[in-house]
Amino acid sequence: MDKPLPPALPAVLVRDAVEMALREDLGRAGDVTSLATLAPGARATAVMNVREAGVIAGMDLAQVAFAAMEAGLSTVRRAADGDQVEAGTAILEISGPARAVMSAERVALNYLNHLSGIASHTARFVAETAGTAARITCTRKTTPGLRALEKYAVRCGGGSNHRFGLDDAILIKDNHIAVCGSVTEALTRARAYAGHLTPIEIEVDTLDQFAEALDARAPVVLLDNMPPETLREAIAMNAGRAVLEASGGVDLHTVRAIAETGVDYISSSKITMAAGTLDIGLDIDIKE
Amino acid sequence: MDKPLPPALPAVLVRDAVEMALREDLGRAGDVTSLATLAPGARATAVMNVREAGVIAGMDLAQVAFAAMEAGLSTVRRAADGDQVEAGTAILEISGPARAVMSAERVALNYLNHLSGIASHTARFVAETAGTAARITCTRKTTPGLRALEKYAVRCGGGSNHRFGLDDAILIKDNHIAVCGSVTEALTRARAYAGHLTPIEIEVDTLDQFAEALDARAPVVLLDNMPPETLREAIAMNAGRAVLEASGGVDLHTVRAIAETGVDYISSSKITMAAGTLDIGLDIDIKE
Amino acid sequence: MDKPLPPALPAVLVRDAVEMALREDLGRAGDVTSLATLAPGARATAVMNVREAGVIAGMDLAQVAFAAMEAGLSTVRRAADGDQVEAGTAILEISGPARAVMSAERVALNYLNHLSGIASHTARFVAETAGTAARITCTRKTTPGLRALEKYAVRCGGGSNHRFGLDDAILIKDNHIAVCGSVTEALTRARAYAGHLTPIEIEVDTLDQFAEALDARAPVVLLDNMPPETLREAIAMNAGRAVLEASGGVDLHTVRAIAETGVDYISSSKITMAAGTLDIGLDIDIKE
Amino acid sequence: MDKPLPPALPAVLVRDAVEMALREDLGRAGDVTSLATLAPGARATAVMNVREAGVIAGMDLAQVAFAAMEAGLSTVRRAADGDQVEAGTAILEISGPARAVMSAERVALNYLNHLSGIASHTARFVAETAGTAARITCTRKTTPGLRALEKYAVRCGGGSNHRFGLDDAILIKDNHIAVCGSVTEALTRARAYAGHLTPIEIEVDTLDQFAEALDARAPVVLLDNMPPETLREAIAMNAGRAVLEASGGVDLHTVRAIAETGVDYISSSKITMAAGTLDIGLDIDIKE
Amino acid sequence: MDKPLPPALPAVLVRDAVEMALREDLGRAGDVTSLATLAPGARATAVMNVREAGVIAGMDLAQVAFAAMEAGLSTVRRAADGDQVEAGTAILEISGPARAVMSAERVALNYLNHLSGIASHTARFVAETAGTAARITCTRKTTPGLRALEKYAVRCGGGSNHRFGLDDAILIKDNHIAVCGSVTEALTRARAYAGHLTPIEIEVDTLDQFAEALDARAPVVLLDNMPPETLREAIAMNAGRAVLEASGGVDLHTVRAIAETGVDYISSSKITMAAGTLDIGLDIDIKE
Amino acid sequence: MDKPLPPALPAVLVRDAVEMALREDLGRAGDVTSLATLAPGARATAVMNVREAGVIAGMDLAQVAFAAMEAGLSTVRRAADGDQVEAGTAILEISGPARAVMSAERVALNYLNHLSGIASHTARFVAETAGTAARITCTRKTTPGLRALEKYAVRCGGGSNHRFGLDDAILIKDNHIAVCGSVTEALTRARAYAGHLTPIEIEVDTLDQFAEALDARAPVVLLDNMPPETLREAIAMNAGRAVLEASGGVDLHTVRAIAETGVDYISSSKITMAAGTLDIGLDIDIKE
Repeated sequence: MDKPLPPALPAVLVRDAVEMALREDLGRAGDVTSLATLAPGARATAVMNVREAGVIAGMDLAQVAFAAMEAGLSTVRRAADGDQVEAGTAILEISGPARAVMSAERVALNYLNHLSGIASHTARFVAETAGTAARITCTRKTTPGLRALEKYAVRCGGGSNHRFGLDDAILIKDNHIAVCGSVTEALTRARAYAGHLTPIEIEVDTLDQFAEALDARAPVVLLDNMPPETLREAIAMNAGRAVLEASGGVDLHTVRAIAETGVDYISSSKITMAAGTLDIGLDIDIKE
Repeated sequence: MDKPLPPALPAVLVRDAVEMALREDLGRAGDVTSLATLAPGARATAVMNVREAGVIAGMDLAQVAFAAMEAGLSTVRRAADGDQVEAGTAILEISGPARAVMSAERVALNYLNHLSGIASHTARFVAETAGTAARITCTRKTTPGLRALEKYAVRCGGGSNHRFGLDDAILIKDNHIAVCGSVTEALTRARAYAGHLTPIEIEVDTLDQFAEALDARAPVVLLDNMPPETLREAIAMNAGRAVLEASGGVDLHTVRAIAETGVDYISSSKITMAAGTLDIGLDIDIKE
Repeated sequence: MDKPLPPALPAVLVRDAVEMALREDLGRAGDVTSLATLAPGARATAVMNVREAGVIAGMDLAQVAFAAMEAGLSTVRRAADGDQVEAGTAILEISGPARAVMSAERVALNYLNHLSGIASHTARFVAETAGTAARITCTRKTTPGLRALEKYAVRCGGGSNHRFGLDDAILIKDNHIAVCGSVTEALTRARAYAGHLTPIEIEVDTLDQFAEALDARAPVVLLDNMPPETLREAIAMNAGRAVLEASGGVDLHTVRAIAETGVDYISSSKITMAAGTLDIGLDIDIKE
Repeated sequence: MDKPLPPALPAVLVRDAVEMALREDLGRAGDVTSLATLAPGARATAVMNVREAGVIAGMDLAQVAFAAMEAGLSTVRRAADGDQVEAGTAILEISGPARAVMSAERVALNYLNHLSGIASHTARFVAETAGTAARITCTRKTTPGLRALEKYAVRCGGGSNHRFGLDDAILIKDNHIAVCGSVTEALTRARAYAGHLTPIEIEVDTLDQFAEALDARAPVVLLDNMPPETLREAIAMNAGRAVLEASGGVDLHTVRAIAETGVDYISSSKITMAAGTLDIGLDIDIKE
Repeated sequence: MDKPLPPALPAVLVRDAVEMALREDLGRAGDVTSLATLAPGARATAVMNVREAGVIAGMDLAQVAFAAMEAGLSTVRRAADGDQVEAGTAILEISGPARAVMSAERVALNYLNHLSGIASHTARFVAETAGTAARITCTRKTTPGLRALEKYAVRCGGGSNHRFGLDDAILIKDNHIAVCGSVTEALTRARAYAGHLTPIEIEVDTLDQFAEALDARAPVVLLDNMPPETLREAIAMNAGRAVLEASGGVDLHTVRAIAETGVDYISSSKITMAAGTLDIGLDIDIKE
Repeated sequence: MDKPLPPALPAVLVRDAVEMALREDLGRAGDVTSLATLAPGARATAVMNVREAGVIAGMDLAQVAFAAMEAGLSTVRRAADGDQVEAGTAILEISGPARAVMSAERVALNYLNHLSGIASHTARFVAETAGTAARITCTRKTTPGLRALEKYAVRCGGGSNHRFGLDDAILIKDNHIAVCGSVTEALTRARAYAGHLTPIEIEVDTLDQFAEALDARAPVVLLDNMPPETLREAIAMNAGRAVLEASGGVDLHTVRAIAETGVDYISSSKITMAAGTLDIGLDIDIKE
């Protein structure tokens, strides 16, 4: 198998996310503009179009947003999460009561724009490192409340997920090392606490620390803020022992040089925090 | 009074937002790294520093994030929301149990980084239009679940808020006008539905539509995607009757020219969706 | 268009409201009476009848209450929200498993009785002021947790909605004016804070205050506790400039005289807080 | 002991109720009027005054509403739930940041007005039946979401609570009897299902049904819609065996005659559904 | 009617319980194993088999767990709650998308295993007391969050439910008696507080206390920790007046002797807290 | 460091768990027994005593349960989670309003009994394997809604945690292998999907499968249902390459023999599902 199977969001998370956003947007009186101007029997047909090239993420959320408004509304998908699409691609067709279509539009688009933005930006980093062994990975710098969705978007863009929270992996940072007194002691404490399915990673700033981490058999090491030449030295020292993650100073200009050093993972908060949005819009036609 | 009084977030919204984010980050096992490496009695002192110039938003959220972790933790503010600060400014001091400080760090920073990013980007648009009568305003293109907070950050940055949801103002768009048959009929329907505290705004694409909106006594008109010269014509036609909002093609390069036409408001999704984050970090010192 | 299009409740609010009420009534053991006395296979047909003339509000809630109990239950509507119906009108027909019908009965009726009571009482005030320009409007004196539904019921009864919360309009009251020092200063501060879609209303107790409010170009003025003759003076002073709302001492005996003064809106907490209920019952026939 | 100990609401229910109501009223932007007109440092002192004689219910809710807004706000109680107070009585004193006091006012009052209305109306029925053995009791006709609070208000007014939901007592009604075929069979089924702490009550419409219920040793019987003379007959037949509840046609004019028949309980939805509100207001003094 | 009608769980409680458990198990990334190894189009057929004899409880929860994962999944029941089944019995058949089946498996089984364990253990106590008048009943010693479900499982096992919370019955214990000064005073206070549908039970430790309780006409008495011979004395003293519940030292070895004394109810926390699980598994066949 | 630092539960999880349980137990009317029999001013002092030897887990939950009832209540801890205590040990002292103490008692005890039962049972398995390298670990067979707490209790008992949900580790089982066609292909797909912090474990039933897993460099292998002699063969084949977990047929009689084979982890659902409760009670003294 060349590439991984497509990820998916659990239905219960999709419903929770959509209902939260609909409550937020519909507020206490609903879509007063549509209620004021569209007769209850008015019908709409609508097409969701991508207006710039990118990678789609969030189709389930968009579809459920419309479905949650009204049972009689139907949607047809023309694209799947993870698809790389061109400007002008129609990705979703909607038909049903006009008030419902208008009321769900912004929630559906806000999710699609935001998550497709992350998927597309991730895909840019992935494309930039094509042909290298390095995988692009995210961080915990995500929008509060949207971490599961944003990490999913990273996967849609071809990226790989870092830990999802403070609880699913040990990541020993400088403060922890300082308290423990040494890289070795920090790893010893981590191993004493961890179970066999608790990943352990340690962040190092220097090659001396890295050497100590290797001696202490750290399984995963984060090489923080090292220039490519230092990374190359680290990789030579490593000789395939630890999984290596590079972080710090990663952007679309620097990422290829970092990838070419031979590191396994390159993490960047940019793919979630500086992604911007993908321009997707809804063209609606209403008949009373 | 020259400038408005400072806005504030209701305490109940702050608590809800913080607890949601803590649940998301702490997951099912808490901060396993700190639990593994820091003794329960270890104490931390920490300073939150702004690493690039910008406008602060989210101090309450940061402070409550730490307080919610442990009763014995104390925080002292050195800045207020809305403050324009320089790189290197310390904005919050924290001291207390080290595990608690480490566990709340990311939630506090994720809110501060995100909201201060919006406040700072808004402030750039506000500064760019200094000396004009135009006020910068947001849209409903916000991150799902964070609308109240993001709109608050816009206010912290000196911007003004557009409607908060579909429910608190009527905003008649092209689809609504098309169904109604005319700008006039759309406004008639809107007035029939609205109460005395339901604001009514109508979006127009052409000066002909604008003329019709003025004849129909629209109180607020959104002039969509008009170049500055067309905006000037509209302002001349308006003669002070309607409040005018310009939108479309607004960025830091174009905004001053738009402001100088004399419009009252300039709306842009960029201040929320393309704001990026403000670089704020936490320097922590731990003693066992 | 003579009258506004009918309002509607967002489906997500309806589901939330119904599920909350079902949880409250079914408690920890469900409908023990029906579980004890009705075999699982027993079937019911039922008709919901209005037992006194009034205006219906809450059909969606009633229908969803039954549907939420069991997938195999069907309902047919014979009336719509906003309908003025006579005593004896059948408004909803239900058929399905008897246990489900019995278990949802009270939740469906409690919503319909309460909201139709508000719609009907509002309609009495509306009828009483027929032929005048005055519209009847509500206040924030609503039952905690039910504001969105009660305001919707006011619309069903032909009334108009005042603000929905503290957040969607500025309403400057005596305390605010006192702190600001004057009506003018209060309005100045309000304008500095408000955006173009934040309505501003100011409450005045005397004609002197009213004159000051007009001079300061207040868009909406609440004339508090003024007798009809004073209201007439205010309307003369106003000369069509501000929208005028009268409040205080409003009941079914006084409302016409107030309306005939020419005010635009008459607000009263009575339409929500003193509405009583509309007598609606369910006639059920069960076969084992 | 002559009278029961005072009831109380669990703190967790009080917090839930207050936070729900604050979220509803503060919405997405908070109290924009106070934010616009009151400086953050402004201080308020306020007194909550009862404006008509009645019985108080809801002091905890009011107090917690203010406390939940801001830690620095203090409240002092001058009355307790269940107190019969005269017009003009000060029941709560508040002092603290003016914005917080203004923002919590309506939530505190809406609860106090509503619940004290129920307590006061209940107390009228209780007073009307003074000297008889009959106790006034409520029904399940309560406002959705507020049942626990409204039932508590009934207790504050000297009333007694009927079952709280479908789950905590068996109440066999006409439909159940019809399906079972007889009063006797319905009681047999109920006893087979019930545990030793599941109360069983049966509703009868005629003295024949009542006789059958007594023969079947029904512990509690609801005598539905019987005139006083029929109730007297029932009481004579009963000879102290079952606890008897009268319902139907109960109002302040009829309740004494019903009570004098000797029934043990008189239930009426009027004490919750037709109670109206007790006029309580807040007098506020603000200093900047 | 020989035995009670079958109990049932309200649909809204079933949905709440299932969604909570799915959120807990699917976490932030869903079933990563199935996402990694099963193509989206893979289909599964599965059979849920009981692997040891017992009584089933929780079929609704299992069925809804699968249905909540995906609309296209179908389930067929082969058993009902309360059924006594042999090892090897197939109770549920499932077919649909393989990822969905795999993802819901553990939630469905965790509920069925746990609740069927309680039903089965209850049934053992019920069988052990066959032919006596004693009914087996539970306590408030239940797993936090699962009380409604565990009490339902007790009913499925042929047991009877004690009170569901602190709120639905008065149970006077030694501490309450001590404060009141006597059994009689405690019962007097309880009667003054209780309504006609508030059951009152009192716990006594000695026959002297029991005699006092009978004199004070206690309707239900809990005889705590009395050996069978003392229970027999109590029953003789009682002469059918109060309903009698025995508790303390109840297990499968002692329960028959206690039942044969003639008590009406025997309560034990063992049926909920020491029940263990019933071994039920899912056999799955997947085709890509 | 010989043993790991003590685990801890995040405060936000503790609050959520306690409030959920208090709502469940206090229901709609609160502790009616204490309200009926204890004057509001009555004070209690209480001591929580362990009545059989065991390991404590859940002190935070117990303490917060009392604190959540009333601000004026104080608690003093005499033991910590993870402590091995003897029968008769006082672990918590409480003093405050008697109604509050009585109302929180059962919630505090239900958590402590349940979690200490799991900690104690885990500790028995840990003690039984003393001197071997094997660590005892749990499964996903936990009580719905309590997984985080039960896994925490396992840690308190000296056990190690397996994955917390379907989302934080890949665990390839027989069904997944069957669909993939081979152990090798399943591992290939898993690696393609996983990130560097997604642990991968594969379950094998035979030594042939195990050999294939080793060849495919599986990092963690679950040896399912193998007798000790087969496990020994596996360990010999492994030569320290993979981490090995044994499962199936694990109980207190078999666990030592399994541990002595040299496996790294032994997993058993018994430590969560068959733990029973630890007998802990509250001795209360009340003064009016």
